[in-house]
Amino acid sequence: MKLAIDQQRLAAELDALGAISEEPAPVVTRVVFTEADVRGREFVKCLCREAGLTIREDPVGNTFARWAGVDPSLAPVGTGSHIDAIPNAGRFDGTVGVLGGLEAIRALMRAGYRPHRSIELIIFTSEEPTRFGIGCLGSRLLSGLLDPAVAAQLKDRDRVSLDQARSAAGFAGPLSSVRLPPECYFAFVELHIEQGPILEQRNIPIGVVTAIAAPASLNITIEGEGGHAGAVLMPDRHDAFLAAAEIALAVEWNARCSGSPDTVGTVGVCDVFPGAVNSIPSRVRIAIDVRDIDEARRDSVLRKIEQATGDVARHRGVRVNLELVNADPPAQCTPRVVDTIVQACETHRLPYERMISRAYHDSLFMSRIAPAAMLFIPCRNGVSHRPDEYASPEGIAQGTLVLAETLARLSEN
Amino acid sequence: MKLAIDQQRLAAELDALGAISEEPAPVVTRVVFTEADVRGREFVKCLCREAGLTIREDPVGNTFARWAGVDPSLAPVGTGSHIDAIPNAGRFDGTVGVLGGLEAIRALMRAGYRPHRSIELIIFTSEEPTRFGIGCLGSRLLSGLLDPAVAAQLKDRDRVSLDQARSAAGFAGPLSSVRLPPECYFAFVELHIEQGPILEQRNIPIGVVTAIAAPASLNITIEGEGGHAGAVLMPDRHDAFLAAAEIALAVEWNARCSGSPDTVGTVGVCDVFPGAVNSIPSRVRIAIDVRDIDEARRDSVLRKIEQATGDVARHRGVRVNLELVNADPPAQCTPRVVDTIVQACETHRLPYERMISRAYHDSLFMSRIAPAAMLFIPCRNGVSHRPDEYASPEGIAQGTLVLAETLARLSEN
Repeated sequence: MKLAIDQQRLAAELDALGAISEEPAPVVTRVVFTEADVRGREFVKCLCREAGLTIREDPVGNTFARWAGVDPSLAPVGTGSHIDAIPNAGRFDGTVGVLGGLEAIRALMRAGYRPHRSIELIIFTSEEPTRFGIGCLGSRLLSGLLDPAVAAQLKDRDRVSLDQARSAAGFAGPLSSVRLPPECYFAFVELHIEQGPILEQRNIPIGVVTAIAAPASLNITIEGEGGHAGAVLMPDRHDAFLAAAEIALAVEWNARCSGSPDTVGTVGVCDVFPGAVNSIPSRVRIAIDVRDIDEARRDSVLRKIEQATGDVARHRGVRVNLELVNADPPAQCTPRVVDTIVQACETHRLPYERMISRAYHDSLFMSRIAPAAMLFIPCRNGVSHRPDEYASPEGIAQGTLVLAETLARLSEN
Repeated sequence: MKLAIDQQRLAAELDALGAISEEPAPVVTRVVFTEADVRGREFVKCLCREAGLTIREDPVGNTFARWAGVDPSLAPVGTGSHIDAIPNAGRFDGTVGVLGGLEAIRALMRAGYRPHRSIELIIFTSEEPTRFGIGCLGSRLLSGLLDPAVAAQLKDRDRVSLDQARSAAGFAGPLSSVRLPPECYFAFVELHIEQGPILEQRNIPIGVVTAIAAPASLNITIEGEGGHAGAVLMPDRHDAFLAAAEIALAVEWNARCSGSPDTVGTVGVCDVFPGAVNSIPSRVRIAIDVRDIDEARRDSVLRKIEQATGDVARHRGVRVNLELVNADPPAQCTPRVVDTIVQACETHRLPYERMISRAYHDSLFMSRIAPAAMLFIPCRNGVSHRPDEYASPEGIAQGTLVLAETLARLSEN
C-alpha cells in the first residue's frame, strides 16, 4: 500500500476552518453551539460527505462519519478530536485531529485500501470548557461519566442551559441516548498538537502518548460588601476582589510548592460585580484549573487551595462558595494501541518519543470505553490557545501519515 | 413666608424615578445615554414643565430648568445634581438633589415667593464614571476643565465614543459650546445624601459641606503571555491576572499606610482576557480609584501605586501601561454660600454639622465657575452605590426645606 498525504489540501482545509470564527483571522473563537461552531461543523460534514463517509449526529452534537469496513458488523476503529475553540485561540488545537483524521481516511482510500473493520471519524462536542464550565462534554456523555440530567441543566454565563443551547443549534433527542455501550469501538486514536515544547526542542516529529494528565476545576464565588469607593473607609471594607486576588496568588503558590514541576494551577476567569470604577466589588467569581499527572498530588494542591480560600474568607470577612466542577482521574493509554502507533512510526521511518499529555483531551474519556492512545505532533514554541499557535504543514502531514497507518493496522485485527 | 415640603409627593417621585432602571427594583442601573437614562431624563423634564419651569438642554445633555426671577438679567442661583446611576445602585444618589431641588422650587412657588434672581435646576450628565471612565462629564465640560475635543473621543467598553452615544441619545451641537462663562451663576448649592455614616451616627439631619475630597483614577493595562493552562509550566508563565492581583493588593496596602484614615483606594474593575478557565490570562485591565481630602497625600499614594506596578511588571515579566484618567484638586466651598446654608438651618431650627465630602460631586466642578457649597442628609448605615441605599422621606424633606430656604436667601442678594 502506497500511502500519500495531501499536505497542501490539508493545510488549506485547516486555514479554511480557522477562518470560521467570531473574530477576524488569525484569531479563532468558535465556542460550542454559537453560529461559528455550527458553521464549522457544516464545513467538516461537507468534506466528509464529499469523501463518501456516512454521517450520524447524536443529541449533543457528537458527529460520527463512517467508512464502512469489509465486515461492518465488527466494532469500528475510531479517530477524531474537536473543532470548538476558546476565545482568542488558534487554528490547530483539535482541528488537526479532525481534518487530519479525515485526510488519513482519504489517503487510505486513494491508496486503494479496503478496511476490514469500519473506520469512524468522530467530531466531539465542546472539548473546551469555555461555555458550560466543564470540558469534554461530548466525550464525557459518550463514556457515561457525566449524568445526562446534570449535563442538560449546565448553564452558560447568560443562564442559557446546555439543553436550550443544543436545541438552538439544531440537536434534539434525549441526552441519555448519547452514552455508548462498552466495547463499541475496537480502538480509538487521537491526533493532536503537543501544546508543549518538547517535540520541537528535540526535533522529533511524533509523540506517542502513554498517559493523560488529570485535570480538576473549581468555581469560587466570593460575596463581600459593596459600597461607594469614596465613602467607605479602608478598615470597614469587605472587598470581594481583594479576596479573589489573594486566592489567585494562593493558587499559584500552592501549584509551585507541590514538590513537582508537573503541577500547574491557573485562574483564567474573574468576573467582578458590579464592575464600576467607583464601587467596591461586592461579588466576584473566579474559575480555577489545577492539573497534574499524579492524581494524589493534584488533589493535595486542591485541598490546600480550599484551605487558603477559607483563611482569606475569615480574615477579610467575606463569604465564599467553592464548587468542585470536575476532578477527573488521569488516563493510562492502552499498550496495544500505543504499540501500533510505534509500529506505524517505524514503518514510515519517523522518529518518535513516548510522552505524557499535560493537556486533557477527549481521549481521556474515550479511554473509559475503548482501548485508546494519542499521537502528538510538534507545535511552535509549545504555544497553544493563542492566535499564534502553529504547526507546520509538513509536521501535520507526518502525523496524519502515522495516523493513517495506525488506523489501517488496527482495522485489520 | 410659610415654606412646606410635600414629603409624600417627593418620596413617590423618587420611587418612580428609581423604577426607571435596566434592572428590576430595588436595583437601579441607569448608565448615561442608555434607554433608562433617556427615560429618566424625560420623567424629570416632564415634572419640571408641569411646575412651569423653562427647559434648555446643552449638547452633552446637561439640562437646565429655569424659574425666571423678578430681574431675569441677573446671574441666577443654581441647584441640582445627577440622575445617572452605576450598575446595581440605589434610588437616592444624585436623584435627591434633582427631585429635592425641584420640590424646593415648588415649595417656594406654593409659599407665594417670587425670586429676585432666577433659580435654575441643573441635571448634570454622567456624574458617574461608569460608561466613559471619567466622572462628572457634564460639570467638567460646563466648567471648562475637560477639553471638548478629548471628551468627544472618550470611548466606552464597546468602543462607542461619547460623541456617538450623545447623538444616539438625541443630543446634537458642538461640545465646545457647553462651557459656561465665569460668573454665570451667582451661587450653586447641591443637596445630596451623605454616602457615609456620620450624620446618622450623630443623629444630625443636615451636613454643611465645607470641602470636597480629591479623586484620582488610574487605568492600568497589563500585557502578559497567554497559553494553555495545562501545558505551560509555572516558572515559564507571565500571567497578567496574577500581576493584577498583586497590584490590587498594593493599592490597598498603600491606601492603608498613607498615614491618614481619610485615604481610600479601590480596584472596582478587572477585565480578564481571554477569560477562559483553561487559558492563562494574557491581558488584564484594572481601574483604580484613589481619594483623599489632602491632595499631596493622595498624589503620594498614587506615586507609590505606580512604583509597585513597576515592581510587579519587572518580577513577573509583563508589560504595564498606566494611564492617569484624572487627578482633580479638592474643592473648598465658598464661605458665603456655606454661611447661607447655616442660616437656613438655624431659621428652621435644624441641627447641622460642618463636614467634608469624601465622595466627589458635580459641585467639585461647579465650584470652579461659581461660589458653591453642598448640604448632606443622612443615609442608612452610610451605604451608597448599592440597592439597599436608603434615606428616609423625613430626612429628605428636611434637606429640601433647608435647600429651599437657602435658594430664596441667595436669590435676594
